[in-house]
Amino acid sequence: METVPANNLTLPITSNETAKFTAYSSAVHKVVVIINTVILGLLQLMSQQSSVFETHKAAFLCFCVFVFFYSVLRVREAIDVRLRPGLLPRLVGHASHLFGCLAALVLVSVVCAAFSIVLFLLWFLWLSTVVYSNFSEIMIYLKASNSSTGLPQLSPV
Amino acid sequence: METVPANNLTLPITSNETAKFTAYSSAVHKVVVIINTVILGLLQLMSQQSSVFETHKAAFLCFCVFVFFYSVLRVREAIDVRLRPGLLPRLVGHASHLFGCLAALVLVSVVCAAFSIVLFLLWFLWLSTVVYSNFSEIMIYLKASNSSTGLPQLSPV
Amino acid sequence: METVPANNLTLPITSNETAKFTAYSSAVHKVVVIINTVILGLLQLMSQQSSVFETHKAAFLCFCVFVFFYSVLRVREAIDVRLRPGLLPRLVGHASHLFGCLAALVLVSVVCAAFSIVLFLLWFLWLSTVVYSNFSEIMIYLKASNSSTGLPQLSPV
Amino acid sequence: METVPANNLTLPITSNETAKFTAYSSAVHKVVVIINTVILGLLQLMSQQSSVFETHKAAFLCFCVFVFFYSVLRVREAIDVRLRPGLLPRLVGHASHLFGCLAALVLVSVVCAAFSIVLFLLWFLWLSTVVYSNFSEIMIYLKASNSSTGLPQLSPV
Amino acid sequence: METVPANNLTLPITSNETAKFTAYSSAVHKVVVIINTVILGLLQLMSQQSSVFETHKAAFLCFCVFVFFYSVLRVREAIDVRLRPGLLPRLVGHASHLFGCLAALVLVSVVCAAFSIVLFLLWFLWLSTVVYSNFSEIMIYLKASNSSTGLPQLSPV
Repeated sequence: METVPANNLTLPITSNETAKFTAYSSAVHKVVVIINTVILGLLQLMSQQSSVFETHKAAFLCFCVFVFFYSVLRVREAIDVRLRPGLLPRLVGHASHLFGCLAALVLVSVVCAAFSIVLFLLWFLWLSTVVYSNFSEIMIYLKASNSSTGLPQLSPV
Repeated sequence: METVPANNLTLPITSNETAKFTAYSSAVHKVVVIINTVILGLLQLMSQQSSVFETHKAAFLCFCVFVFFYSVLRVREAIDVRLRPGLLPRLVGHASHLFGCLAALVLVSVVCAAFSIVLFLLWFLWLSTVVYSNFSEIMIYLKASNSSTGLPQLSPV
Repeated sequence: METVPANNLTLPITSNETAKFTAYSSAVHKVVVIINTVILGLLQLMSQQSSVFETHKAAFLCFCVFVFFYSVLRVREAIDVRLRPGLLPRLVGHASHLFGCLAALVLVSVVCAAFSIVLFLLWFLWLSTVVYSNFSEIMIYLKASNSSTGLPQLSPV
Repeated sequence: METVPANNLTLPITSNETAKFTAYSSAVHKVVVIINTVILGLLQLMSQQSSVFETHKAAFLCFCVFVFFYSVLRVREAIDVRLRPGLLPRLVGHASHLFGCLAALVLVSVVCAAFSIVLFLLWFLWLSTVVYSNFSEIMIYLKASNSSTGLPQLSPV
Repeated sequence: METVPANNLTLPITSNETAKFTAYSSAVHKVVVIINTVILGLLQLMSQQSSVFETHKAAFLCFCVFVFFYSVLRVREAIDVRLRPGLLPRLVGHASHLFGCLAALVLVSVVCAAFSIVLFLLWFLWLSTVVYSNFSEIMIYLKASNSSTGLPQLSPV
């Protein structure tokens, strides 16, 4: 693995890769907002007869915190994508998606706890995939920078 | 049918065909989101006096599951359309539309069961059309690849 | 009127005409969705104290049917505009707008019956205008095709 | 008025001016829709305990009428901007904005009457500014067309 | 610092800088609208059993005032960005973001007072950062205009 070709290293910094991640990220952001809105609508149906807000106050506070992190990371991603494309905005974008889904998960857990556990396992699988794929990319970078120090544009991460 | 011309085969992979499917798909996605939102609004009108959430808990769980499949397939379609145009993102897109409509159907069945049965038959008709048209395209592909093995770029499906 | 010039006939098929209708149509679609959402919000205000859903069940069923027709025609229009520009997608688009407004009218009739009658007369005036203008265009086509049979591209309608 | 020069009249019809007004107009339309939605959401909070719809039936009827005028003028503006740029679509656009804000003002008056009076004065100030600036433009047009026929670039105030 | 190079001064007026700020600003505006809508939805859950509107009338009036300032500044920013790029539309845009977040903060304070205090400190940190970064840019401008008076295009601020 010491002989990593140069085109493999510069691939995540090409504008084509950036455009593809932007398209993927905006699709995920749209879906996250729609799902959170739909589950809030479902909760309004549920709360007509019972005081769902009082009994799940901690869950709604968690939801607020996750939505806050999601918003900050989403704005950060929007700034970084144009400013300095590379690995960093992608990591920020993935973190933003994961926090947005976590917020939706908290709302689902209020509607139906059993279903939210299944979704949480899928969420954890997604987290593992994202961490693994980005970690392996960073490893390739580091190894390449250790073995061959003739690559000047190794700025991101 | 053994003498399928080459331009017939490469037609679903042309960028023109892809752009057309993308326009169609985004129109359907927009309509699916609007319809689901409108029916959730109708349900909020309905649930003011009766505990509609308790009596239809199974329906709302089905709705959550369908919305989950719809979201996953929609994101998958957004990734695939750019990455590798062909039959696969179209199949994923059609599956996403069908799951989104199924979620709306479940909500309609809570509002008015008789109307949802009529809509379900129309949904089944739509499913049949999509399956038939894509199945016949795949058949043409397979026959063409059997009769003439000189086509190297038969990657999708 | 037998000597209709050729540029008069091909005018509704030019891409300029199509782009203009697309801009008009998307503005109407946006307004239709906003109005339906706003009136649903008003109805939620109204239904807090009285069981508005039970007393107007027929109206809400009509609303669902009209929204269904609106959605199908809107998707149909989105497919046709790119595939074969001409009179047909414009007729489908106008029908979609009229069904969307009819759905809003049904909701308004629940809020205030007298106001909805005034709006229905305006809706009928709009319907007449659309039918008249498109009917006269079709007449010009047919007369031109009868008098001079040398026009091969008279496919739409 | 018989010898109106062509280049004098066509200056406010330049595409740069039109693009600037379109950007401004779409920003105002977006804000108008957001504000109306937000105040409807506030009203739903308010109406949980009191029958706000029965006591303010006239206000909600006014709101419906204003939203109707807003919609018609907005569609009219969308048609005119492309068809014949100039003063007319700008007047229609300004009227549309003013009706949309008036609709929001009626809703605010239900939430808090004192605050709506302050806003109404600001709305009146805005109306005066729009009327004054457009009236002076029309005056300059008329004077230029009456007195002198040699003004090449009559920059529109 | 008297020898500020010319490219440092003209940097905030370049179209590249303007495009970057526009992308950042639209991301923040989108997030502000989503957060305000989501917290209004949460408040509707909360207000089902208690008269939240009566006990927090002052908070909702503050919210209306902040949303009003947010709207006016957002429209002002949309006008200025195209008309005269420079420091002024950026200041207006930052003020608009801060007012929009303040409106969301007021709503959060109704849901959970302790969480809103933490967010308010973060909001204050953001305000300080914006004020500091823009103030230092203005200082550079003023010093440059004092030391070297040969820069004619120092129009913004």
